[in-house]
Amino acid sequence: MSNAFESLAKIQADLNALGAASALMDWDQQTYMPAGGAEARAVQSSILSRMRHEIATSDAMERAIREAEEAAESEEELALVRIHRRSFDKATKLTPQFVEEKSRLTSEGHEVWVKARRGNDFGLFRPVLEKLVEMAREEAEQYGIDDHVYTTLLDLYEEGATKADCDRMFDAIRGPLVDLVAEIRDCGRQPDNGFLFGDWPIEPQRAFTERIAGAVGFDFDRGRQDTAPHPFCTGWSVGDIRLTTRFERYLGSAIFGTLHEAGHGMYEQGSPKNWDRTPLAGGVSLGIHESQSRTWENLVGRSRGFWTRFLPDLQQAFPSLASVGLDDFVRAVNRVEPSLIRVEADELTYNLHIMIRYELECDLLTGALAVADLPEAWNEKYRSYLGIVPESDSNGCLQDVHWSMGALGYFPTYSMGNLLSVQFWTTMTQEIGDPEAGFAEGRFEPVFEWLREKIYSVGSLKTPRDLVLSVTGRPMGAEDYLAHMSAKYRGLYGLA
Amino acid sequence: MSNAFESLAKIQADLNALGAASALMDWDQQTYMPAGGAEARAVQSSILSRMRHEIATSDAMERAIREAEEAAESEEELALVRIHRRSFDKATKLTPQFVEEKSRLTSEGHEVWVKARRGNDFGLFRPVLEKLVEMAREEAEQYGIDDHVYTTLLDLYEEGATKADCDRMFDAIRGPLVDLVAEIRDCGRQPDNGFLFGDWPIEPQRAFTERIAGAVGFDFDRGRQDTAPHPFCTGWSVGDIRLTTRFERYLGSAIFGTLHEAGHGMYEQGSPKNWDRTPLAGGVSLGIHESQSRTWENLVGRSRGFWTRFLPDLQQAFPSLASVGLDDFVRAVNRVEPSLIRVEADELTYNLHIMIRYELECDLLTGALAVADLPEAWNEKYRSYLGIVPESDSNGCLQDVHWSMGALGYFPTYSMGNLLSVQFWTTMTQEIGDPEAGFAEGRFEPVFEWLREKIYSVGSLKTPRDLVLSVTGRPMGAEDYLAHMSAKYRGLYGLA
Repeated sequence: MSNAFESLAKIQADLNALGAASALMDWDQQTYMPAGGAEARAVQSSILSRMRHEIATSDAMERAIREAEEAAESEEELALVRIHRRSFDKATKLTPQFVEEKSRLTSEGHEVWVKARRGNDFGLFRPVLEKLVEMAREEAEQYGIDDHVYTTLLDLYEEGATKADCDRMFDAIRGPLVDLVAEIRDCGRQPDNGFLFGDWPIEPQRAFTERIAGAVGFDFDRGRQDTAPHPFCTGWSVGDIRLTTRFERYLGSAIFGTLHEAGHGMYEQGSPKNWDRTPLAGGVSLGIHESQSRTWENLVGRSRGFWTRFLPDLQQAFPSLASVGLDDFVRAVNRVEPSLIRVEADELTYNLHIMIRYELECDLLTGALAVADLPEAWNEKYRSYLGIVPESDSNGCLQDVHWSMGALGYFPTYSMGNLLSVQFWTTMTQEIGDPEAGFAEGRFEPVFEWLREKIYSVGSLKTPRDLVLSVTGRPMGAEDYLAHMSAKYRGLYGLA
Repeated sequence: MSNAFESLAKIQADLNALGAASALMDWDQQTYMPAGGAEARAVQSSILSRMRHEIATSDAMERAIREAEEAAESEEELALVRIHRRSFDKATKLTPQFVEEKSRLTSEGHEVWVKARRGNDFGLFRPVLEKLVEMAREEAEQYGIDDHVYTTLLDLYEEGATKADCDRMFDAIRGPLVDLVAEIRDCGRQPDNGFLFGDWPIEPQRAFTERIAGAVGFDFDRGRQDTAPHPFCTGWSVGDIRLTTRFERYLGSAIFGTLHEAGHGMYEQGSPKNWDRTPLAGGVSLGIHESQSRTWENLVGRSRGFWTRFLPDLQQAFPSLASVGLDDFVRAVNRVEPSLIRVEADELTYNLHIMIRYELECDLLTGALAVADLPEAWNEKYRSYLGIVPESDSNGCLQDVHWSMGALGYFPTYSMGNLLSVQFWTTMTQEIGDPEAGFAEGRFEPVFEWLREKIYSVGSLKTPRDLVLSVTGRPMGAEDYLAHMSAKYRGLYGLA
């Protein structure tokens, strides 16, 4: 890198150190922190955020970016200044008063939401949500609306994605998915998955999940796995990426939770070492990230090949499964069933949960839907798309944490991830053939290596859109996804 | 607090947040961090230290302290400015070049020491140690030598303590301890402790040590215990204090290690909540801190009363101990035996290890001893005080990490802690009677409450010297300690 990048690198190192500290504090809070630590942690954490914000929006930072912009030549340098410019603009566009007010409202909003969900009291949350929606509109205006208020908000999580992309995506999958789910529901061939529920001991679950995460490519010399109520993946260098999982009555929670987070983790671990502690390292967007977690959770982890290799190990760890056959096991972990709770949804219905939230968010933001009418609209969409209706708002429009944190525009990235995972997979099988036969013998390197070369090692060098184009030769679409889902589930359920 | 304290409080909060982040990074590094995380952690951690140093030595800090000094009225305010002034002076007296050079040398020195110890090669470490001793002298000169070079260095760890204090302390205990240890060695009544060594499973050790730590008063809602190669206690608020322990072939490692760290932890947890995140909270010095860890490790944890209560529990957890009688158990955990390694030394010989290091440090610093002659001098002192001679420098003058980190002047605080633990204990028994009978019934609150009132709740409000004076009515002395040790071990060993 040229000398013009030196002051940028120095400021960037400071931001990275503060960010690493915040991330570690957050990891600790969700894994090991005793209850008594919350109060001081909140204060200390917010002070570090303030320090980081001050540095990220400083005159020195702006000057450093400008100088680097003038000097940038290589692809890496150009990417670096693009990322810094984007972050700087995002960080400086909101007024300090707005940032403070939003922080206050989301912190209060989260508490109210917890109470409202616990007490099934939408009325309690309603005035807060009204303010949060209003604030999201105001936020979009301060960032600047070139296209649509939704596009501006979405761009915070998925650079370059637009409302039109989302509309196209959901328009393409709405009909086929709703129909396929209904067909499965009505076919009368629901597989038994009761054997996956029980009081499973924790240690064999920990050992098994770490074994499969290691087998697919997660590097435990540069990472670890712990337990958290809501699994996540985090990290502060390519050499230290942390997964969390949870141990529940449904044995699949730990297994697929671990594979999901390991997918995020391998993406993070796969950045070039010489980009460590720079914005070039790490996943580029939420949608691309989700495509990687879904790949390992669903396309690998729910495959027949995978369980040909690992069902015997699982049966050894949990002897009550000894009599379960491979076919029955694979059908059980791929059981499709309309349900009320997004985070417990199967691979197929998951996108319908997302679509409902997306449609409601759009209507809330444009004013087409009043917050007061949200529960009814929510329930109506569940009836229409999934054929079931929540018996309470707690299991309905109060179930997700996102809105209470002011995060509108976030949900579609989950569906993008689902579509992209299959789009990448399809390209991969065209290039290296179907890797599933190898899974049965424990060979996951062909998949890992392809992803490492095409996606992991690119880090944040390319924009999400450019990455998809360069890897698959076309922008994100729904064709591969729909074809894959139709073939897979028609096969599993013996549909015509 | 008055308005003049507001800017001080703001800067202090920033320093606290950065300090908390550094402490968490350090805890994580010693407990959970994967090997791959070390490189980035070192960079990120040193950046946070630099930021903290910049704030701690800023003009704004100096101004805030000066204003607060002028406005200070209450005891708390006076203590606060005293502590800040002391920290500021310490932080600003060393030249930046010196700080950088010391950081470089100790980092390099540590690596060389690790190799030298592993290879039993004092010659490798010698040139580094020569530089480190020279640098310690230079450091004392930059801080300013009013009394003696040793006093200046000691004051970094134990405010207000002097070389004369150390000389008095060691002169008082040298003869009696050397004689008592020799008498025990020669008496031919060494108890068996072989039953404490074995391949103990970890989980029952974890459960048992957490039970006893909780029983004596460590609050697990405001703290936790993890595993680390070298046990320590750390924390970042009165609501989040962390212990570590280790599980070894000697069952006492975990038990007494946990009680030791829990003693540190209860001291930290016992600061008034409204002092949280200020320099008034937490233990005041290394010596006072060690007195609290030693109280729970030795005066409580090695007592007959304690094991009357807990031996049955321990036997339940480890059935191989079922046939061990109470008297034999108590004698075993109080076995005194001259040995070569400080960290494995018993309660009685421990101070002799410290005294040896103190005498050698003084001679190294004054030039009375050349570094080249250290191994010989070390061995001669072990022969003279403990009656044994290291067969290698690895088990001799290369065993401790302290000097490789440039920490000369630190060791005496261990002995101060030992003496003070008994001096506080003696005062306590005069005020509330001997609490040991209650231990047999699991009553530790009388001790906990007395310590809480007299020591924990005082935090860093008083200087170490004032605290000792106010609690015991006299400065630190050796009489109580010697009387206690003589009575205890003459009793255990049936000496006249």
